[in-house]
Amino acid sequence: MNAAILGVSGYSGSALYKLLKEHPKVDKVNLYSRKPRRSLAEAVTAFKNQPEYLQEYDPQAIMAENDVLFLATPAGVSSQLASVFMEAKFPVIDLSGDLRLKKAASYEKWYQKPAAATKLLAQATYGLAEFEPVGTYIANPGCYATATLLALAPLVKEDLLQLDSIIVDAKSGLAGAGKKLTETSHYAYINENAQAYKVNCHQHIPEIVQELQTWNDKLEAIQFTTTLIPITRGIMVSAYAKVKPGFAQADLEAVFTKYYHDKKWVRFSGSDLPAIRDVIQSNYCDIGLSYNPVTNTVLVVSVIDNLLKGASGQAVQNFNKLFGFEETLGLPAIPAWP
Amino acid sequence: MNAAILGVSGYSGSALYKLLKEHPKVDKVNLYSRKPRRSLAEAVTAFKNQPEYLQEYDPQAIMAENDVLFLATPAGVSSQLASVFMEAKFPVIDLSGDLRLKKAASYEKWYQKPAAATKLLAQATYGLAEFEPVGTYIANPGCYATATLLALAPLVKEDLLQLDSIIVDAKSGLAGAGKKLTETSHYAYINENAQAYKVNCHQHIPEIVQELQTWNDKLEAIQFTTTLIPITRGIMVSAYAKVKPGFAQADLEAVFTKYYHDKKWVRFSGSDLPAIRDVIQSNYCDIGLSYNPVTNTVLVVSVIDNLLKGASGQAVQNFNKLFGFEETLGLPAIPAWP
Amino acid sequence: MNAAILGVSGYSGSALYKLLKEHPKVDKVNLYSRKPRRSLAEAVTAFKNQPEYLQEYDPQAIMAENDVLFLATPAGVSSQLASVFMEAKFPVIDLSGDLRLKKAASYEKWYQKPAAATKLLAQATYGLAEFEPVGTYIANPGCYATATLLALAPLVKEDLLQLDSIIVDAKSGLAGAGKKLTETSHYAYINENAQAYKVNCHQHIPEIVQELQTWNDKLEAIQFTTTLIPITRGIMVSAYAKVKPGFAQADLEAVFTKYYHDKKWVRFSGSDLPAIRDVIQSNYCDIGLSYNPVTNTVLVVSVIDNLLKGASGQAVQNFNKLFGFEETLGLPAIPAWP
Amino acid sequence: MNAAILGVSGYSGSALYKLLKEHPKVDKVNLYSRKPRRSLAEAVTAFKNQPEYLQEYDPQAIMAENDVLFLATPAGVSSQLASVFMEAKFPVIDLSGDLRLKKAASYEKWYQKPAAATKLLAQATYGLAEFEPVGTYIANPGCYATATLLALAPLVKEDLLQLDSIIVDAKSGLAGAGKKLTETSHYAYINENAQAYKVNCHQHIPEIVQELQTWNDKLEAIQFTTTLIPITRGIMVSAYAKVKPGFAQADLEAVFTKYYHDKKWVRFSGSDLPAIRDVIQSNYCDIGLSYNPVTNTVLVVSVIDNLLKGASGQAVQNFNKLFGFEETLGLPAIPAWP
Repeated sequence: MNAAILGVSGYSGSALYKLLKEHPKVDKVNLYSRKPRRSLAEAVTAFKNQPEYLQEYDPQAIMAENDVLFLATPAGVSSQLASVFMEAKFPVIDLSGDLRLKKAASYEKWYQKPAAATKLLAQATYGLAEFEPVGTYIANPGCYATATLLALAPLVKEDLLQLDSIIVDAKSGLAGAGKKLTETSHYAYINENAQAYKVNCHQHIPEIVQELQTWNDKLEAIQFTTTLIPITRGIMVSAYAKVKPGFAQADLEAVFTKYYHDKKWVRFSGSDLPAIRDVIQSNYCDIGLSYNPVTNTVLVVSVIDNLLKGASGQAVQNFNKLFGFEETLGLPAIPAWP
Repeated sequence: MNAAILGVSGYSGSALYKLLKEHPKVDKVNLYSRKPRRSLAEAVTAFKNQPEYLQEYDPQAIMAENDVLFLATPAGVSSQLASVFMEAKFPVIDLSGDLRLKKAASYEKWYQKPAAATKLLAQATYGLAEFEPVGTYIANPGCYATATLLALAPLVKEDLLQLDSIIVDAKSGLAGAGKKLTETSHYAYINENAQAYKVNCHQHIPEIVQELQTWNDKLEAIQFTTTLIPITRGIMVSAYAKVKPGFAQADLEAVFTKYYHDKKWVRFSGSDLPAIRDVIQSNYCDIGLSYNPVTNTVLVVSVIDNLLKGASGQAVQNFNKLFGFEETLGLPAIPAWP
Repeated sequence: MNAAILGVSGYSGSALYKLLKEHPKVDKVNLYSRKPRRSLAEAVTAFKNQPEYLQEYDPQAIMAENDVLFLATPAGVSSQLASVFMEAKFPVIDLSGDLRLKKAASYEKWYQKPAAATKLLAQATYGLAEFEPVGTYIANPGCYATATLLALAPLVKEDLLQLDSIIVDAKSGLAGAGKKLTETSHYAYINENAQAYKVNCHQHIPEIVQELQTWNDKLEAIQFTTTLIPITRGIMVSAYAKVKPGFAQADLEAVFTKYYHDKKWVRFSGSDLPAIRDVIQSNYCDIGLSYNPVTNTVLVVSVIDNLLKGASGQAVQNFNKLFGFEETLGLPAIPAWP
Repeated sequence: MNAAILGVSGYSGSALYKLLKEHPKVDKVNLYSRKPRRSLAEAVTAFKNQPEYLQEYDPQAIMAENDVLFLATPAGVSSQLASVFMEAKFPVIDLSGDLRLKKAASYEKWYQKPAAATKLLAQATYGLAEFEPVGTYIANPGCYATATLLALAPLVKEDLLQLDSIIVDAKSGLAGAGKKLTETSHYAYINENAQAYKVNCHQHIPEIVQELQTWNDKLEAIQFTTTLIPITRGIMVSAYAKVKPGFAQADLEAVFTKYYHDKKWVRFSGSDLPAIRDVIQSNYCDIGLSYNPVTNTVLVVSVIDNLLKGASGQAVQNFNKLFGFEETLGLPAIPAWP
């Protein structure tokens, strides 16, 4: 099979390139760019000995030469590019947020950009790999959404929480924010610092709520905050909620075990709360929980490598599902320690 | 005046030494240790040209040669040393947790150590500098407690919160944990990592609750979690709670302004949430808040330098109060940026 | 094939485990320890879902159940264990320094430990993969030695340098120093710091000189210094030397190209000096050089991931050579960026 | 006294503001900017409660309202602004490189910008505080130059080195490069990385050589390389050179002691090589040396806080000298540990 990437020079695109080049079912990775033709070595110095060139973007050529297209493009791009592939029913895995939200108005409110056409939004399927079937056009979930939804799924699906009490406090490294140069991406700003950002306006909030509501329509909203911490890769989600009467640590652990014992990419560790370090360079989401009887509150902690399980790794997981391969194929199952 | 320090070789003790040496009212800083006599230069290489020696601990000599004693000792030490100074009514500022809790049983539950004698506990005063009068034996608050209490004080005192909904998610650098060598203090473990620890069993929880209850006796408990992040200095507290009906962003800001407009060491920035970076090497606690009408939840973020406002800085602030000096005297009022 | 690891719980051992588990020619990885039997999940939390157990060390069982043994043990261990495997001519790849030096006296001087028996030292071959043939007992080079020797090989072999002018200034992350808890491995010591250590007494100096002398017997010594910098993985070697008359940038680049154009794991980038970041999670040694006509000095910069090319990666490269596999087999050829 | 700062919003300017505000001889700090009037709180969030405003730049007003002007401006600015102050013989301390080099051609070669007028260059004095008398217009040395010159001064002045063998390998944090947003200042680029830059073309090279030649006119050039490491503050200089016959460790230490025993801001520690950590937030330059008889090479390591001793701290030291104050006045003499 041949796989195409648009946007390889970004962080998620680079991680995706590494995965696809090492994937046993992918014969060739073709790279495309909306900029003039240049070599991959120029675009990403770490890839200085890789032979590929970034071809100029051409949808017909992409469909002629490839079996699937991965879009690792900034917000506002795939909404403009999607239709030609959808009309041709050509398989696309879109790592951007453009087609995740079903409501155009919601996209425009949270992304402050024009939304994709409604019929495009309708055709895209939200690709939370552990819980959703794949379609031909997969809107790959955001990094925060992946970690948050996997932390909350068992409790929300089983309706064990006071739904108006959910608070998510996320911590993230810089890779999630991409290569863009901003005052808050300068080393001297981030280093030895922590800074909450996009409070109550982060664009991953609506996709989290949209998905939670498909699981439990009584849920109305969640409180979501994210804080930048001085690491490159990794996200930790600390999710808090009041538990309905009659459930304690053992009951909650049992529910997580029921949902995740057969999931290859979720490692549930009971009351041992996971550390970011333990999933870096792997596709795992590690989860642990701690129920506090004094406050009747459960804390669920989930950690992921935001460039893998939070982006390119889950994209390859969806690719495997889409083409009927084993879900673990070509994905890193042993974290890099230390 | 002469000031004595016991425990200068620890992180808080070193920070305290710097403050006291530069304090305009302190003529001499005398150092004491429970180890054999050695030079300060040996104990702390950064102080290689400082002339002081660590004298062997001798309470009578300390009282004879000094006007005040600062205890920067590990848990379990000052409970054994306090009585001689209390009986002599000699001024002590104790940076450890040994005499913060009024109930011996509570200390023994949370610290897993024998508590100080009940009459000692009764004589110590909890020294949250912005809100409590000083006594002769001051139990200086813990770093997490300082940041958490200053974030919650206006809302709890004014009874604006649903008191059973308070959730504190704290992030901390390594300095707070001290010099002890442990697997989780190794550089390769902490770097590029985040790790929740002592969940629901951190020894600062009972002092936070004890103080909150003196402000609002309807409060029963809080949910408190702390996560180690890869920085040396600094704590960020993210405090969440449901707000009682009828209050919005402006109302909550007004309450904080009322409480803090005349407090020299608290900088309230309204809806601008503070960053750790902005208080490093200063004695400030920066606070901002964000009310979310969708979830009816307020997020209050407070940041401090855990070795200054969270330890030695507040200790000197209490020292200033105790001896009738201006509260800002000898304390760093301009953060080191960057 | 089955491969055995002794010392999997260390950093190099963990990295080696990941490589061997993913190696296409390795059917089974058997783990051994000189401690009582325990699970790999206990030993390394990042491997929490790995099925292996660490069996108690038993040389006969190791030889019966495996085709090769990797020793990832601290200094002073393999010198005691090597003989039984050598006598049986059982293939061993030893990541420690115990059998790298040909002279017992030299080992005892630099390692301050008893050396292996002389006949053991004689049988071991120094496994600098790009330049040395493999034997049955391979003494895998040290991380600093690998980066330094690859930086100097073309110039020393071609005798282009004033041999008494070689100065190596290396920078290293903490992973190279291993898991041991020391004052200088504490996060608060390493973070925001740089510290030269083991100046003129680092145990990798003699193996570097020994190898350089096999290439050019006129060489007597080098000046070697290494500085700890706050990163986990990675080494940068900055090697300086006066160049013999008549050579400039282009000539020196031509020599490096001649030596490395066909080496799979060395990426020579001419006058572009490499960054550590570009080789992390790969087996590459990236090299660049800059000749300064004003001082007649060449600077050669080489970078490696010290746990891969500097330890486990080169070990697998030697394993590939030993068993006649393609030298790149099972080794990461695409760095993880960022 | 009143002191003026032009360029307070940069890193050096911010550090300078803190020092001058806390300086016992400075009554008022007036801030100026070439941008429209704005508050300091806007310009630097860490200074959110500071009352000052940045006035629009007006040389006559500056001279009318102040006793001294500190220029913390980018390269190419003070060359354009200096003349009016020089003509008025108004005291200026210039932290930029514009007037450090005596030869206009040299400035234009290394800075790639038009040089200041020759008569301006002639009037400026190079302000290496430990060795040079102050003039009315002080060209404050660069950070690398300060650490390098203090490391080499005793050996070059006493003519103990083979002068063509000097190699300086410097390591630096990001603060030295300033606030400018570049690909190589992005957190995800710098973190877990090391990168040599401006090799043989760093603009501090000519000022180092110019000063060394005033001390020893036989010196022609030095080899100078600098590497960015992931820290915010701090520079470490590792200076290597062949020593003339007849000198060993003790002799070299004696020379350093002779030069520095009475220098308040240099801490010479003999064979103990200093760590960056030990000088952070202080004005010290810590120096240690190690002579290697095998290679006849001395390694001198010097460390500074590049924003203090390497910029604003030395500027205040020169200010103290200029106005006849004690050289230590208002400068941090106790490092912040940890």
